[in-house]
Amino acid sequence: MNLDVVMNLDAVLIPGMTAEVADSIKTQKETPMTNEELFLAVALNGWKGNIERADKIFSGLSEEELLKEVAPGKNRLIYLWGHLTAVHDAMLPLLGIGRRLHPEFDVAFVSNPDKSQAGVPSAELIRRAWREVNTRLFEGFASLSAGDWLKKHAAVSEEDFLKEPLRNRLAILLSRTNHLAYHLGQTALRSK
Amino acid sequence: MNLDVVMNLDAVLIPGMTAEVADSIKTQKETPMTNEELFLAVALNGWKGNIERADKIFSGLSEEELLKEVAPGKNRLIYLWGHLTAVHDAMLPLLGIGRRLHPEFDVAFVSNPDKSQAGVPSAELIRRAWREVNTRLFEGFASLSAGDWLKKHAAVSEEDFLKEPLRNRLAILLSRTNHLAYHLGQTALRSK
Repeated sequence: MNLDVVMNLDAVLIPGMTAEVADSIKTQKETPMTNEELFLAVALNGWKGNIERADKIFSGLSEEELLKEVAPGKNRLIYLWGHLTAVHDAMLPLLGIGRRLHPEFDVAFVSNPDKSQAGVPSAELIRRAWREVNTRLFEGFASLSAGDWLKKHAAVSEEDFLKEPLRNRLAILLSRTNHLAYHLGQTALRSK
Repeated sequence: MNLDVVMNLDAVLIPGMTAEVADSIKTQKETPMTNEELFLAVALNGWKGNIERADKIFSGLSEEELLKEVAPGKNRLIYLWGHLTAVHDAMLPLLGIGRRLHPEFDVAFVSNPDKSQAGVPSAELIRRAWREVNTRLFEGFASLSAGDWLKKHAAVSEEDFLKEPLRNRLAILLSRTNHLAYHLGQTALRSK
């Protein structure tokens, strides 16, 4: 059987990502993938698709539009963008990829509600951090084998992981993809 | 290595689901799972968690609450519930599980916007269809092996699937989980 597998998975073209990084996250393979690799490629594809969608929406908003609420009395778009950036940043240590790049985002966008803090990062800072964090994640993903994704994530102990082997890196990837989709649904309600 | 794997994946207790079905969708295993099975179990876990969450929200709403919009001028909760039911119903043939149970939901909840149709299914009909469809899906999921999830879904040709092997059943499961999360995010914005 000549599969000659070329995945229909173009690298996510986040503006600012270097060509080398884009190449490294391609899932194109000349040889047939194993079942494990296929499972992983579908999961990564879902992440990439949602990141692309979010990037297109948020990067396309003006500073003024970012200050609008998604619905009356609800979170502002800038808050959601910062929130997603912070949550993705926290995936770096959770997946064993590296240290957080922007832990300071938590006070503004995770542990406190929108419009409660005086000095929150500007749209420009969020824009840069968003690209930086997601690029770093893509680099990290490219360095993990399919088997690595089944290893425990950093927030579960070895002991608990023996009893609950689904608390692995893959579970983080899928739940964070859902988290992203959850907030994209809210973002879609903004008045245009 | 004695894993003695007992997954922390209790069956989804959708009211109305029989105990037998609940048992069949448990992913508890006494023997260690293969990597393929672990990948699949994490994916199914994500689906189940989101179904549980949706079930808790929608089943807990009164008829009056269901007629409210998630935000001013946006979809009503009843529309989102019907929409999710219709989209999940369409997964049955797409995954090769069986024929649709409620194709008539499409006119009311998919191909036309909210508040545009005169006679849409009542809350009681949606409630029943939601349970019926999701129970049927869980039964179908229980009958698929990890390898089955990597086979093509029904909307892609054999020819295209050779070129794009990620257009498989798993991709449907993950994208529909994201779709569910997307609308749950909107549902969370309703005034309570």
